[in-house]
Amino acid sequence: MIKVGLVGATGYAGQQLLWILNMHKETEIKFISSNSYEGKEISEVYGNYKKYFDKKLISQEEAGTKLDEIDVLFMALPHGMSEKLAGQALKSGVKVIDLGADFRLDDSETYEKWYKVKHENPEINKQAVYGLPELYREKIKESSIVAAPGCYPTSAILAAAPLLKKNLVKTENIIVDSKSGVSGAGRGLKTESLFTEVNENFKAYNLFMHRHTPEIEQEMGKAAGKEAGVIFTPHLLPINRGILSTLYLDMTEEITEEEIYKIYEEFYKDDYFVRISRELPEIKNIKNTNICEIGIRADIKKKKIIVVSVIDNLIKGAGGQAVQAMNIMFGLPETEGLDYLSMYV
Amino acid sequence: MIKVGLVGATGYAGQQLLWILNMHKETEIKFISSNSYEGKEISEVYGNYKKYFDKKLISQEEAGTKLDEIDVLFMALPHGMSEKLAGQALKSGVKVIDLGADFRLDDSETYEKWYKVKHENPEINKQAVYGLPELYREKIKESSIVAAPGCYPTSAILAAAPLLKKNLVKTENIIVDSKSGVSGAGRGLKTESLFTEVNENFKAYNLFMHRHTPEIEQEMGKAAGKEAGVIFTPHLLPINRGILSTLYLDMTEEITEEEIYKIYEEFYKDDYFVRISRELPEIKNIKNTNICEIGIRADIKKKKIIVVSVIDNLIKGAGGQAVQAMNIMFGLPETEGLDYLSMYV
Amino acid sequence: MIKVGLVGATGYAGQQLLWILNMHKETEIKFISSNSYEGKEISEVYGNYKKYFDKKLISQEEAGTKLDEIDVLFMALPHGMSEKLAGQALKSGVKVIDLGADFRLDDSETYEKWYKVKHENPEINKQAVYGLPELYREKIKESSIVAAPGCYPTSAILAAAPLLKKNLVKTENIIVDSKSGVSGAGRGLKTESLFTEVNENFKAYNLFMHRHTPEIEQEMGKAAGKEAGVIFTPHLLPINRGILSTLYLDMTEEITEEEIYKIYEEFYKDDYFVRISRELPEIKNIKNTNICEIGIRADIKKKKIIVVSVIDNLIKGAGGQAVQAMNIMFGLPETEGLDYLSMYV
Amino acid sequence: MIKVGLVGATGYAGQQLLWILNMHKETEIKFISSNSYEGKEISEVYGNYKKYFDKKLISQEEAGTKLDEIDVLFMALPHGMSEKLAGQALKSGVKVIDLGADFRLDDSETYEKWYKVKHENPEINKQAVYGLPELYREKIKESSIVAAPGCYPTSAILAAAPLLKKNLVKTENIIVDSKSGVSGAGRGLKTESLFTEVNENFKAYNLFMHRHTPEIEQEMGKAAGKEAGVIFTPHLLPINRGILSTLYLDMTEEITEEEIYKIYEEFYKDDYFVRISRELPEIKNIKNTNICEIGIRADIKKKKIIVVSVIDNLIKGAGGQAVQAMNIMFGLPETEGLDYLSMYV
Repeated sequence: MIKVGLVGATGYAGQQLLWILNMHKETEIKFISSNSYEGKEISEVYGNYKKYFDKKLISQEEAGTKLDEIDVLFMALPHGMSEKLAGQALKSGVKVIDLGADFRLDDSETYEKWYKVKHENPEINKQAVYGLPELYREKIKESSIVAAPGCYPTSAILAAAPLLKKNLVKTENIIVDSKSGVSGAGRGLKTESLFTEVNENFKAYNLFMHRHTPEIEQEMGKAAGKEAGVIFTPHLLPINRGILSTLYLDMTEEITEEEIYKIYEEFYKDDYFVRISRELPEIKNIKNTNICEIGIRADIKKKKIIVVSVIDNLIKGAGGQAVQAMNIMFGLPETEGLDYLSMYV
Repeated sequence: MIKVGLVGATGYAGQQLLWILNMHKETEIKFISSNSYEGKEISEVYGNYKKYFDKKLISQEEAGTKLDEIDVLFMALPHGMSEKLAGQALKSGVKVIDLGADFRLDDSETYEKWYKVKHENPEINKQAVYGLPELYREKIKESSIVAAPGCYPTSAILAAAPLLKKNLVKTENIIVDSKSGVSGAGRGLKTESLFTEVNENFKAYNLFMHRHTPEIEQEMGKAAGKEAGVIFTPHLLPINRGILSTLYLDMTEEITEEEIYKIYEEFYKDDYFVRISRELPEIKNIKNTNICEIGIRADIKKKKIIVVSVIDNLIKGAGGQAVQAMNIMFGLPETEGLDYLSMYV
Repeated sequence: MIKVGLVGATGYAGQQLLWILNMHKETEIKFISSNSYEGKEISEVYGNYKKYFDKKLISQEEAGTKLDEIDVLFMALPHGMSEKLAGQALKSGVKVIDLGADFRLDDSETYEKWYKVKHENPEINKQAVYGLPELYREKIKESSIVAAPGCYPTSAILAAAPLLKKNLVKTENIIVDSKSGVSGAGRGLKTESLFTEVNENFKAYNLFMHRHTPEIEQEMGKAAGKEAGVIFTPHLLPINRGILSTLYLDMTEEITEEEIYKIYEEFYKDDYFVRISRELPEIKNIKNTNICEIGIRADIKKKKIIVVSVIDNLIKGAGGQAVQAMNIMFGLPETEGLDYLSMYV
Repeated sequence: MIKVGLVGATGYAGQQLLWILNMHKETEIKFISSNSYEGKEISEVYGNYKKYFDKKLISQEEAGTKLDEIDVLFMALPHGMSEKLAGQALKSGVKVIDLGADFRLDDSETYEKWYKVKHENPEINKQAVYGLPELYREKIKESSIVAAPGCYPTSAILAAAPLLKKNLVKTENIIVDSKSGVSGAGRGLKTESLFTEVNENFKAYNLFMHRHTPEIEQEMGKAAGKEAGVIFTPHLLPINRGILSTLYLDMTEEITEEEIYKIYEEFYKDDYFVRISRELPEIKNIKNTNICEIGIRADIKKKKIIVVSVIDNLIKGAGGQAVQAMNIMFGLPETEGLDYLSMYV
């Protein structure tokens, strides 16, 4: 049994992660923390657990004193809050999987510029592996600290990687038009997250300045082997969970839709959680799962490729991907605890 | 032109009232207030007004200094906040229409018991007329202060009044099973009002203890001419607006569904905003309107009558009903500014 | 491994059942049928299965020729369609679990009256056990044919059974005010099931005449040991899945809320899938699960008890309950294949 | 009073149009037709009208015999169905406003290619004016037949026109990423329009091949004075009404966001129904209105301009725009019958 601790268990991502860990056959949850609900039982905060699973929420501080009880520490905190405890954990020989943004950007300066927070200990960041198993499985296997990718970046990077790797598309001005369910905004209290504000509404936000932009650019650039520029436009969907990203890519050479499909199928042939589909993907087919589904349309005359991808932002975009990384790090089957389909309705 | 002031313009009820007053041909809006957004333009708080209507939000205090500019003061405040300003207004000869709960209960003690607030000046409460035009049109005409009914009570009282007036149903344990859209909870920040908490969810709340209970009992009792006991069970619907109430009533004598329909049609024959329907009513047919639609089913063998009513909680249950009262108080056609149908979709 | 066949796999209940059987560790799916989609792969009809599970849909007729391949036949058909094939299966020594209404009513005449269909072979109906494990676990164990309860009846019967068994409430005019998500209406094409008709809407339907009424009356009567009369009022909720039922019961003697809670906790103490809760239950806490959650409020002065229950109509109200019955019939742990919690959001 | 007839009154667009005409002070509705519901009263088909407005639905054929009773004929029919009756009407001196696609494309061959229907009488098409008042007000004034623009094209063309007119953006590969509410799919019965299929879902559809593509290209081309190529990607939003379009445009020269805003404000300075906004537009601020709201973001370094526009697809995208055209054709104030704001919630 892998002994795990979880700090930040009461945000939507943290709760989802807890749900998965509770289902997982090879983990034992040693502690869960929450600064907002310290001292309460988790079932008082999330009624789905009542009678079935319970544990008292401790403070993050107390979590820091219990690192010797665990093999791996999951962190689902707002950005700028993970570094110190991550450092402690690493020192104690505990593996770290961080669901926040603190260790996703290779370059500490870029991080500082976009997140307005400094890496106190840039060494930790240097150790961190970007936890997208489909691209970094081998590195994750050997890492002691993994930065689970952001939800939007997961949907965007998986959608573009095969084309970028083969240099089949231009890397300037890649357009990522994304639409996310509301759970992506977290459980914090904001007028714009109220039911009556979101329901029957739709909007774009943070154009040219969403913090996931440098993360997408970094990974698209690495895939292509050269700098990539991304226009990232997030929108807010009136649904609970799910992200759909529509990518607009410019061909560098003529290529048919069928040829592109072949490349994707080959590229992801060993990736259980990526589903390449001839039909355009829909959120309802993957919600509540760790699956990323991808569909492609191409127009040779216009030299345009449109790739559409869907994920569940709380699972493949957060808690599920983190557990997938854990499975890899601990030599378990990658699908352990993650092998369920969408119920469709 | 009727000169109006509005305190509490930025809650959902206040905003709806403002919308109606802005459309109304015979009103001139002299000031609007908001304690939360004092100093902002209303269009900064509600983007629907941008470019079309604007006015700076003043404080409630400042509103008190401008009573000489208006003929009628609308108040859409949390309970316990209306009495002082209402008193001032009345003294200045300004008519008052209060959308809150402060003057709905005849008995100040009952008010105090349920709302945990005292009437400092019970005289004001005594002057107040319960502003349900279908039952109190004549009194409203002559009143200087009107307490606009609560949203749930409006749906319940209109549904039962004809049967109560004729003593065709028992007055003990009248069951009112109501379901309301989320705007009824207001625009305040509460975890349980977040989109992700309400969407795809449904729940009952405040059983046996919702504050609208004494209001419903008071008015049902008055209609019946004897004390009435109500079991009121509110539920939260994942929609923006609308209330549907299902009432279970016990016949005192045998009566057919058709006879009951006749009674309702007769009772409401002069009420433009009450629609008696042989089909069961649906929220989509009345949302965004001042209409209350009522359908009836009866089972003589079981001696049960079920009455189903629907209203838009923000209009017939708040701003629309308040303007309907104003129209009556100022001798205007009752439908002025209120004469639009639901767009259905 | 239990070899199973499923006829009616492409309705929402059938699909949910298939989902569960696919996750179940002890079953092997031998065939699935669909009259509407015969010849297609299930993944062409429900995209959630793509790449992960597939099987060609055969006709119901062909299913009849494959009974020798299976141990148990699940049937999820419109009413009036199960009898013939069920008879064949029983003759071949195949156990039958029917999710439809054909064998739920003990009295063939009552069935005929409400469903306008005749039992051609009333013997089958006589053999059938009402498949509510919490009340009939022992009988299910020994049965060869089980009628899985209707969704509304499941929510109503579990909510009232403990009080009825102890004769603590009157059995005349038990009010069951239920609200169901749209999947309960099935996947058939009807204008009133369109998104634009249901969304932002709410309505009651089939008052005094919904076909689940005699089923609820039968089981409430059996629990009480005397005839029971039920007023059943269904409503349509704009959500995908979930039923909340609000029951109004009249005390036969004075009893406190706390005493009632004790009775319920004792009554269901061995029932893994019933959760008694001091908080009022919410659909989001049980959706996508086989759990029925129940909350209670009582008012001694009014001699009224309100019981609120929630289930997922497609799981505890259909596919999950059917598999729970199968587990019992085949001596498996009752929770096999059903042991997951709601993801909350 | 303008005497109007309406064929196709029971689709969502037709119903919306009827709603507006019923509110309009200068119109008298002489007949309404529906092939699906011939012989019924409109209030039997759309319950919002009950008691307030009614008229029997006649057949389209019968409508053809009543052209002498009207001044203007509105047609809201599926494509390929308007030509014959339009021709009759024009011959009788009746003005025609067609909400369908039959007369939107200048080039009959393009129409035939995309819609697989032939113009029997191409002369009618030649007479038709594209009914976008903001671009063709003067032409509409003098026209006898107007083709009301498609919903998606309205949102796209208004968003891009000012930049195209000034040749500030490239005209190849203009990306229009649009998201529409479900009412755009009409009231026809399709599995994919069921509540349970759309709710909590999101998808893209008809990539590179949606029929609104040539219409957008035609009008963008005309605005720019040269051929325009458009990548149009529609998506289906789980809301009743509203379209948001996100346009990606390539600068031909460096220009700041502020300069672009100035151009838009100038361009639309006399257009009551276009609102240029410094905040990004949201559907909730314009739903149930005839307003198109537009927001702009630009990045000089990337040489990209993103324009976001929102409309109500049934009003500015259908019935409202048609009435706006009628107002212009008949010399009425353009805002007559259309002057209401969104209720926000």
